[in-house]
Amino acid sequence: MAKTKGPRRPKAETPKGFRDYFGHEVTARKAMLDKIAEVYHRYGFDALETSAVETVEALGKFLPDVDRPNEGVFAWEEDADWLALRYDLTAPLARVAAQYRQDLPTPYRRYAMGPVWRNEKPGPGRFRQFYQCDADTVGAASVAADAEICAMLSDALEEVGIPRGDYVIRVNNRKVLNGVMEVAGILDPADPEKFASERGIVLRAIDKLDRLGVEGVRALLGEGRKDESGDVTKGAGLRTEQIQRIMTFIDVSLQFGPEAQARSKKIAMMGRPMMFLGGSNPSASAVKFLRAVVSDSEQGIEGVYELEQIASLLAAQGYGPDRIIIDPSVVRGLGYYTGPVFEAELTFSIEDEKGRPRQFGSVAGGGRYDDLVKRFTGQPVPATGVSIGVDRLLAALQAKGRLDTTAQGPVVVTVMDRDRMSDYMGMVADLRAADIRAEMYLGNPKNFGNQLKYADKRGSPIAIIQGGDEAAKGVVQIKDLILGAKIAQQATVEEWKSQPAQIEVARENLVQTVRDILDRHK
Amino acid sequence: MAKTKGPRRPKAETPKGFRDYFGHEVTARKAMLDKIAEVYHRYGFDALETSAVETVEALGKFLPDVDRPNEGVFAWEEDADWLALRYDLTAPLARVAAQYRQDLPTPYRRYAMGPVWRNEKPGPGRFRQFYQCDADTVGAASVAADAEICAMLSDALEEVGIPRGDYVIRVNNRKVLNGVMEVAGILDPADPEKFASERGIVLRAIDKLDRLGVEGVRALLGEGRKDESGDVTKGAGLRTEQIQRIMTFIDVSLQFGPEAQARSKKIAMMGRPMMFLGGSNPSASAVKFLRAVVSDSEQGIEGVYELEQIASLLAAQGYGPDRIIIDPSVVRGLGYYTGPVFEAELTFSIEDEKGRPRQFGSVAGGGRYDDLVKRFTGQPVPATGVSIGVDRLLAALQAKGRLDTTAQGPVVVTVMDRDRMSDYMGMVADLRAADIRAEMYLGNPKNFGNQLKYADKRGSPIAIIQGGDEAAKGVVQIKDLILGAKIAQQATVEEWKSQPAQIEVARENLVQTVRDILDRHK
Repeated sequence: MAKTKGPRRPKAETPKGFRDYFGHEVTARKAMLDKIAEVYHRYGFDALETSAVETVEALGKFLPDVDRPNEGVFAWEEDADWLALRYDLTAPLARVAAQYRQDLPTPYRRYAMGPVWRNEKPGPGRFRQFYQCDADTVGAASVAADAEICAMLSDALEEVGIPRGDYVIRVNNRKVLNGVMEVAGILDPADPEKFASERGIVLRAIDKLDRLGVEGVRALLGEGRKDESGDVTKGAGLRTEQIQRIMTFIDVSLQFGPEAQARSKKIAMMGRPMMFLGGSNPSASAVKFLRAVVSDSEQGIEGVYELEQIASLLAAQGYGPDRIIIDPSVVRGLGYYTGPVFEAELTFSIEDEKGRPRQFGSVAGGGRYDDLVKRFTGQPVPATGVSIGVDRLLAALQAKGRLDTTAQGPVVVTVMDRDRMSDYMGMVADLRAADIRAEMYLGNPKNFGNQLKYADKRGSPIAIIQGGDEAAKGVVQIKDLILGAKIAQQATVEEWKSQPAQIEVARENLVQTVRDILDRHK
Repeated sequence: MAKTKGPRRPKAETPKGFRDYFGHEVTARKAMLDKIAEVYHRYGFDALETSAVETVEALGKFLPDVDRPNEGVFAWEEDADWLALRYDLTAPLARVAAQYRQDLPTPYRRYAMGPVWRNEKPGPGRFRQFYQCDADTVGAASVAADAEICAMLSDALEEVGIPRGDYVIRVNNRKVLNGVMEVAGILDPADPEKFASERGIVLRAIDKLDRLGVEGVRALLGEGRKDESGDVTKGAGLRTEQIQRIMTFIDVSLQFGPEAQARSKKIAMMGRPMMFLGGSNPSASAVKFLRAVVSDSEQGIEGVYELEQIASLLAAQGYGPDRIIIDPSVVRGLGYYTGPVFEAELTFSIEDEKGRPRQFGSVAGGGRYDDLVKRFTGQPVPATGVSIGVDRLLAALQAKGRLDTTAQGPVVVTVMDRDRMSDYMGMVADLRAADIRAEMYLGNPKNFGNQLKYADKRGSPIAIIQGGDEAAKGVVQIKDLILGAKIAQQATVEEWKSQPAQIEVARENLVQTVRDILDRHK
């Protein structure tokens, strides 16, 4: 059975977890990124494209999956160094900000777009190479920089086609979360390393509030949680009064989340009645409640004050709670955030494969990371920024029918006589010179049916035909494939007759006739 | 001396041979690629973006540097597989053409743009990550496909700003070269593996004709060559009559190269008088001479016939010898070419660092590679394509002053009163809403001089100033930084007075005044 003659053939496969993008998948993404870049540029941000390869030590270890500190990147050894593919666009920015600190303006506003790579277990819809689109301001300590990033993100989302009301940008502050931890007795400002693992569990639990519900979170804060399958997740082991402190904060989160109403319904279904307290300005109310929750933690109070400033700066520019709100439940996975954190959530629902409505969820996130550049320079350098999940945002636009995926194929000039290739290429050249997308059929011309099948597969609007007879008369046949398809699908014989899908015109009228047909189908 | 306290800081450095691109370096490249993509699209080519990571076996070993068959790529092991970064865009296309052969149209015209990686020794101006921009047609055996690629390359070069006359596309055919080898007795059609190393030396020698001159090539065909430093390069060890056969071909090459005149001067200086025989249609004459040189080699005759067809198809579309010519001296380094090969050369000279004129040379190349897809499928699949060296083409446009590298900085709204941030952000928001690039100064506002220095570093055209007095009066100061710089440079005191570089306007006239000043400087 085995056929072992000749050398073994390589497998024609993308490596596991990688994929290729075809045609409009490439151009639709490009069109979206172009629009975002325009917004970033208008805000004064400059383009930066860093090398895809970095030293492992420059990248650092900041991936969310803390259980695998040595994995997560694609790395290889070179001489004494380890090199790796970047896993995000923030770590390279920190390196650039340190490397070129004498030459760059301060503050340095930059945007970056490109692929990043993560050595994770691939799964359905989960890839190991994906696009990010980031904007960051390095060297600005003021929360005005955070507010600007949020406003810019809002503009960018609207620019690509997410209308106001279909998204909300939720802002929180790590300092507030730290304040809550301090009040609960699991953060000692004098010894920040103490209780680090407990805090990690608490943050992850809050981050999963939507999915686990209040009782799930409470279990994780205490002894741990057993899920439906019987798997047990280790808890933080907090005492009852500590848990109560954090649950008070969770209450505030639940009342001011963007989906507070929707969520309160869901929570009610999970056995806990809720009331929506947002009111006309949920941000202002949230601030009031948060101040009570962080009690006398210095860091917590500072965090609440910063949130107030952000809300007021944004309001001055017209960005009200219909676009950007304070939401205490935002946590963000990455370990390096030190201040404001933000997340853009799409609030419309789409139907999943089984026709059930599903919230779209987060498409962008970011925050302040004042210590990343310090890793290199030893000097503190404040920084803040946002990253848009390009593939998710594209999927959202697709789901909303806002992507043009019907890229039109070229006009196909068919080949009737193999020895008159020059004539056909001349026609193609004329069409292209008139800025009409066109090509000559380059496959084996023997079977004419194959040529029309090819035109069909390309989504061609028009096929051009010129046999020997037509050539002698100086004419060409122009076949309107769009009309032809419509007639074949719907029309009666009468209609067919009145609308000829194929016409004969003089060779010199080829370009004009093609243009007329294309215009008609626009 | 050593300060070892705290953890060791990572070095803020790109790995050796890698670099970052800033601001207009990114946007100028993007603008150029956008123009090229437009041409490719008009020709009916579809976008494709393959994964950056491939299996090593799918990539194959086709890098030009045959001395290091196992190197050249960045690779790492994963489970049982070796993965690597792509070293060009052709090998991934061959994989795609095999993997999706049921779904793709035949022929499949695709373009691709993106970085590729080569694990080579870095040197000055020689990087291990660089951009390529390719277009290929898979599944078309006809030389019409090769002709189309050449025409498209010509259009693309003119579209990005290389005027006709400043470039030439040189076309040759590997089959002609094989014919010459056959005639010289170093290619046996019945046993293609025989004399492979001799042929390798001969091809490399012809490829270096420009640099080594005729006598250098002759030495490499025979016993070898000693260069000025005394280093010896091994020769092919051919017999005198074999060498003579190849030198006859070299003669033809020299007479029909695009730079034949320039080169004949250079060769004359190297002690060998030359005459330019090009005439009004160098392609037609070259074909005549080549037919004589390949004598009765079947493959050689076929190659010459293909060149004739290409020249005639191109002529029918108006691409004459002012743009595309037959040039027997084109070899191309890559091992996988099987038919027509082409190269785009810029024919203008630029000045090097020392002010000496220098030819710009090759910016694109390609050819037919009918066996690449066969590696995967076992079935022969004809293919042809071209790759543009993006960085070289950009450098050429830069040298010709055709790149817009003066990207204008944003209007900078300065911060006089730290507690009126909302006012300043409001101004910025108004400017941005009017589509004017603008930002608020986000650094420490204490030192006002720093704010103006920042505006200068950003290349800002205008700075906006509003202190407490102005705020009370409802006005702003608008500082025209471009005019200010001109005045500081050239003007006398009288002129300075007549042209105020700073004016006071009502807050509500801010946007209009800024727009007027920007328009004036356009």
